[in-house]
Amino acid sequence: MTKVTAQLSVSVDGFYAGPRHTGDGDWMTSAESAGFFRVTRWVTDAMAWRERQGFAGGERDTNSDVVAESFEATGAYVMGRRMADGGEVPWGEEPPFRAPVFVVTHRPRPRVERKGGTSFTYVTDGVASAVEQARAAAGGRDVAVAGGGSLVRQVLKAGLLDELELHVVPVVLGTGLRLLDADLDLAEKEAVELTPIRVIPTPQVTHIRYAVRGRAPLQLDDRGSGGGPTVVS
Amino acid sequence: MTKVTAQLSVSVDGFYAGPRHTGDGDWMTSAESAGFFRVTRWVTDAMAWRERQGFAGGERDTNSDVVAESFEATGAYVMGRRMADGGEVPWGEEPPFRAPVFVVTHRPRPRVERKGGTSFTYVTDGVASAVEQARAAAGGRDVAVAGGGSLVRQVLKAGLLDELELHVVPVVLGTGLRLLDADLDLAEKEAVELTPIRVIPTPQVTHIRYAVRGRAPLQLDDRGSGGGPTVVS
Repeated sequence: MTKVTAQLSVSVDGFYAGPRHTGDGDWMTSAESAGFFRVTRWVTDAMAWRERQGFAGGERDTNSDVVAESFEATGAYVMGRRMADGGEVPWGEEPPFRAPVFVVTHRPRPRVERKGGTSFTYVTDGVASAVEQARAAAGGRDVAVAGGGSLVRQVLKAGLLDELELHVVPVVLGTGLRLLDADLDLAEKEAVELTPIRVIPTPQVTHIRYAVRGRAPLQLDDRGSGGGPTVVS
Repeated sequence: MTKVTAQLSVSVDGFYAGPRHTGDGDWMTSAESAGFFRVTRWVTDAMAWRERQGFAGGERDTNSDVVAESFEATGAYVMGRRMADGGEVPWGEEPPFRAPVFVVTHRPRPRVERKGGTSFTYVTDGVASAVEQARAAAGGRDVAVAGGGSLVRQVLKAGLLDELELHVVPVVLGTGLRLLDADLDLAEKEAVELTPIRVIPTPQVTHIRYAVRGRAPLQLDDRGSGGGPTVVS
C-alpha cells in the first residue's frame, strides 16, 4: 500500500536551512547553506548516504540505518523545482535516488534519464498531479516528498501527506527557512492533528515520525476543574 | 548542584499558545487559550498535576511521572509577569508550586505568601537577578523557569539556561506564540548548540530534554565529497 511520506531535517526551532540566499554570491558559502549543512550533517556522516554518493567512510550506526530504510521504502519521489535545479550538477550522472523523480515546476522541460534508475519528470499541472504520477510509478512502495520545505508544506496543506518524519537536530538557528510556516490556511482555532508513530533518539538527532490525521477544531477544555472528564467540547 | 531548567509544551511547529489575545474578550475563550489548552492537555490529564490542583481523576502514566518528577526536582521558580498575573486568581490560596516564585516585572510589589509553601517575590532588576535569587532560595534543588515563552527565551539568550525540556505535542497550530522566535541576538552563521540528554516518547507527547551547550559558529563542510573527514572548518 503506497503511502505519501515526507521527511526533513530541522533545527529545534524548526528551520531546515539558514535565511534564503538571494543575489549573486556562492550558495555553498551562504548563511542558507550554513544552516542547511548543520541540520543535514547527520545525513552526510551516515555511511548509507555516503555509499549512495560514491563517497568513502561514514558512520554505520542508527542514523545510517534510518537513511538506508528511507531509500529502501521509496519507489518514487516528488521534488520542488528549486531543489531539483540546485541538485542537478552536484548529483551528477548517477543521482542518489535510483527511482523516478517528479519535479513540480511552472516551466515545461523534457524528461531526463540518468544512470542507476533515476529519472526527472517535470510536472507543470500542480502538486496533486505530481503526487498522483509518483504514486503510479512507485511500484507499491512509498512516494517520498523529497523537499524542499515549501513543497512539503504544500503537500501537507493539500491533505495529501500520510506521514511526516522530522529529524530534529539539537541546534537553535534563530532564523532561516522554516518548514511549518504560517501558510497552511488553517481557520481560527483549527489545527492539523498528528500521531507520533515512531521516535528514535540518537545523540546527533531525534527522529520523530508522525501519521497525519488531518484538520480538526481546537477544543476548549475546563482545565480539569470540574473533576470530571477533562476535555469538553 | 542547582541547575537552571526550563520546560515548555509546544506544538510540532513550535507554538506554546495560539495568537496573542489582546483586547477585551475573555482569555479563556480566545484563540490564544485554544492553542495553549491543546499543547498543555497532556498536563491537565496527568494525575500528578490534578493532585496538585486538588482535582479528582487523571491518568497515572508516564506523562504524570514526568510532571511529578518536575515538581520534585524544583526548589524555586522564575516566572514572567504576564503568566504570574494570569495565574493569580485560578491558582487560588494554595498555588501548585509549593516553593518560592520569583516574578520578573517592571512594577514593584510586596512579596506575597500563599499556603503550602508558595511565595511570590517581585523582581524589578532583571532576569539575571531573578535567577540568582531563585538559585539562593532553591535549597540545592533546581531553578525552573516556569514561563511564559518570552521569559524562557530571555534566559536562554542571556546564557543562563542549563537544560531545556520541550514537550512536543503532535499538533500543527499554524500560528501563535512561538517559543524560539528570532530574538536570540545570534550573529550570522552562529547558532546555539544543544545535546539531547533524554527522550521519552508517549502517544500524547514526546518529551525531549536538552543540555544547553551554548553559542557556536556554524561550520561549513564539504558535503563529504573528499572522502575524508566530513566537517572542515
